[in-house]
Amino acid sequence: MRPRLKDVASLAGVSTATVSRVVNDRPGVSDAVRDRVVDALRQLEWEPSGMRGNPRRRTVGLLVPELTNPIFPAFAQGIESRLGRSGMTTILCTSSPDGVGERVHVEAVADIGVAAAVFVAGTHADTEADHGVYDDLRERGVAVIVVNGRAPGLEHLPAVTTDDVEAGRLATEHLLRLGHRRIGLAAGQLRYMAASQRREGWAAAMAAAGLDADQVVVEEAYTISGGRRAGDVLLDRGITGIVAASDVIALGVVQAVRARGLRVPEDVSVVGYDDSMLIPHTDPPLTTVRQPVDKLCRAIARLCVQAAEGAQLSTTELAFHPELIARESTGPAPA
Amino acid sequence: MRPRLKDVASLAGVSTATVSRVVNDRPGVSDAVRDRVVDALRQLEWEPSGMRGNPRRRTVGLLVPELTNPIFPAFAQGIESRLGRSGMTTILCTSSPDGVGERVHVEAVADIGVAAAVFVAGTHADTEADHGVYDDLRERGVAVIVVNGRAPGLEHLPAVTTDDVEAGRLATEHLLRLGHRRIGLAAGQLRYMAASQRREGWAAAMAAAGLDADQVVVEEAYTISGGRRAGDVLLDRGITGIVAASDVIALGVVQAVRARGLRVPEDVSVVGYDDSMLIPHTDPPLTTVRQPVDKLCRAIARLCVQAAEGAQLSTTELAFHPELIARESTGPAPA
Repeated sequence: MRPRLKDVASLAGVSTATVSRVVNDRPGVSDAVRDRVVDALRQLEWEPSGMRGNPRRRTVGLLVPELTNPIFPAFAQGIESRLGRSGMTTILCTSSPDGVGERVHVEAVADIGVAAAVFVAGTHADTEADHGVYDDLRERGVAVIVVNGRAPGLEHLPAVTTDDVEAGRLATEHLLRLGHRRIGLAAGQLRYMAASQRREGWAAAMAAAGLDADQVVVEEAYTISGGRRAGDVLLDRGITGIVAASDVIALGVVQAVRARGLRVPEDVSVVGYDDSMLIPHTDPPLTTVRQPVDKLCRAIARLCVQAAEGAQLSTTELAFHPELIARESTGPAPA
Repeated sequence: MRPRLKDVASLAGVSTATVSRVVNDRPGVSDAVRDRVVDALRQLEWEPSGMRGNPRRRTVGLLVPELTNPIFPAFAQGIESRLGRSGMTTILCTSSPDGVGERVHVEAVADIGVAAAVFVAGTHADTEADHGVYDDLRERGVAVIVVNGRAPGLEHLPAVTTDDVEAGRLATEHLLRLGHRRIGLAAGQLRYMAASQRREGWAAAMAAAGLDADQVVVEEAYTISGGRRAGDVLLDRGITGIVAASDVIALGVVQAVRARGLRVPEDVSVVGYDDSMLIPHTDPPLTTVRQPVDKLCRAIARLCVQAAEGAQLSTTELAFHPELIARESTGPAPA
């Protein structure tokens, strides 16, 4: 006989309403009580209704472009542990530049027969890519959820994002408040939604301050060496503040600044983007715009559980506010 | 008709011997030629012999304990891209402390029907764990490969490791050469093979220098706060050099040193373990013992390809030499 909510409640010593709150990941439950309920769920091998009898309905495919940028492991870990609390399993597919591409993983995921496929910063965010793969998956009964950047034409897909326009604006306003006027953008590739929207936020903040700076945008790869190249170009143009498209790019920019015998932040201020575990420990600790990874992962996991239960998912884009975290890579503009 | 080696060779404009070298991941091929061959393999949808007709024979399950420690994403990325070059797909399962456990993933992986399951620093390395799960998988036709720490009783499983005894010895000898005599160990949990073997290397180096220091070993979690706690205990005991069980622990130790108004490395030297992308960018850049991740991943991928082709795998443990990378967290012992 399958366990029921009240069996779980009885074992955990809580009400069925509390069990329901935990299963549906709603607030109002202390961590200690939540842990007790999760233990009871596991002990009784409880499965959410709608997923019974089909282990593949309890599995989610998660596709990320790479794992060397620490923001992607952060997403993977967050989604896995959120889903784990609801009795679901995540399989993670990572596409490195010289490894397997997204399309191969999509085939594998469809072959396995998961309930949902979650794409983080994938080709869905690339305005120049072919997007047929998403509808192929949907036709095979797999819900598709896209994270961070939904390109035009994909409005029929559920989407969870950090507000990238706001992220670009926050970083730029921080530098403006510190007195910087020549503020450059070490952008990622602008064919990607996230990069172009962050440029939009940067340009809006510059315009609001009466500044025009379209000549100081450099497109580069999301790597330390990409950041180093972008930094070199921007420093040649005399900027004093740099908004970087990722923390990894920002660390490359810091290298470029120091390679000229200049200091961060006394001579040049640098703002990153993402924030992950080691960023407070870098030299200098990076000022950055933090993605609210926990909130995104919670929203993504909730959509996955809904998909596993056979529900129709809302296609309203869920956009979350980023937050400026001021550390030591930014300071007053040089006189 | 399925493509043959000579079709691939012809499309790539190389000899069949070169294609064979690429497919079997042997040296002697330039990166440019390798890329051309890999492109041709993909274009022709070539599959290694022995894997034909069964997509699951081309899939490998990779199980890691967590992704927040950056060494695990480094392994995942390395294995994925190596396998990708051989036409194989990796699905990654991560077990966070509050998420899904290893056993649940094992079920999922067995259900999917992969050719091999690779366990990195999993319960196979835990001398107190129940290891029945590995034989369950083997009985279901899945090859099992364990990475970093093979507990007693698992000698029948193929194993790939960084030599942990040597790692502990290298870190300790580095501090001894710098004049340190009171050298403590911020160890992980000693029930794990890797931690206990690194202690063995540390103790051997101390003994060779005529020192006895068993009172300065602290077992702690593999986190920054674990490192901070270990650092506090060791500093209370007057040590001047600390060998940490991971870079993440080492960063916590650095925090503990600075919280007392002391400096790294002028007052206390700290050696990490692992080395990954951001470690040269930490404050201070960590001196660390580097795991040869590329070499391990190459060996792991080769075993996976052999398993996919139905070969019997050797159970000789493949142990690779770690390397001391001296950066700025270590210096001469204080007078």
